[in-house]
Amino acid sequence: MQSTDTAAVMAVMTSLIDAWNRHDMDAFANLFTEDADFVNVVGTRWIGRDAIGKAHAATHATIFKNSQLTLKDSSLRFLKSDIAVLRAVTEVTGQVDGAGRTLPPRDALLTLIMITIGKKWSIAVAQNTNIIPPVSPDNR
Amino acid sequence: MQSTDTAAVMAVMTSLIDAWNRHDMDAFANLFTEDADFVNVVGTRWIGRDAIGKAHAATHATIFKNSQLTLKDSSLRFLKSDIAVLRAVTEVTGQVDGAGRTLPPRDALLTLIMITIGKKWSIAVAQNTNIIPPVSPDNR
Repeated sequence: MQSTDTAAVMAVMTSLIDAWNRHDMDAFANLFTEDADFVNVVGTRWIGRDAIGKAHAATHATIFKNSQLTLKDSSLRFLKSDIAVLRAVTEVTGQVDGAGRTLPPRDALLTLIMITIGKKWSIAVAQNTNIIPPVSPDNR
Repeated sequence: MQSTDTAAVMAVMTSLIDAWNRHDMDAFANLFTEDADFVNVVGTRWIGRDAIGKAHAATHATIFKNSQLTLKDSSLRFLKSDIAVLRAVTEVTGQVDGAGRTLPPRDALLTLIMITIGKKWSIAVAQNTNIIPPVSPDNR
């Protein structure tokens, strides 16, 4: 039932946003498969749920401590009945730099490849890329 | 035969590099499925082989005209026997900015989700993220 699967996949996305905003990186990590593979916005790759959880726990103790994540847009496609590709546009607010200065809001395109294990949808592959608006010709 | 599939998937990667370096964006686009979906390093998303080909033809007439792409590292995982996830670290040299100045070499992490149609492997989903080395605490 595609509509049930769509709802289940979107529920994982909602849970990810919710875990981020509560800074609960155990809940965050539990949305991933044990062997999941995550590439963040600066091209750092973490392999395994534990590594993903630890890395995010570290940043949620520092630069993301008071940050909030919002889902601005998404589109979903099933490569197979049990493999989903979610393209999500997110906005992060309240991120700070190393000196504690709050950075401007930032949009990113987060891709989540989800698979089913049993009937549970989990994130197997993730990649996030900052959305950088085009510069005007005068500023190039 | 997994080893045959591994070779076929890596051959698509090699063809992509080769097409880039010959600036043959028809050959480049033909590596993608008709409904493929590409997110580049600045978070721009193109949907469809035609859009992917046209966008790359435009950049290969300008900023990438004399650029060369090298595969520095890769790892491959099959989510299913007919769905492959290739994580590739590439280096671009010879990219120019809008003023024609050559930019420093740039590494990126390119993810290609490939599927089989018949026995042919093609790229269904792609995302590229620049690898930004960590700054030292003094520079934050």
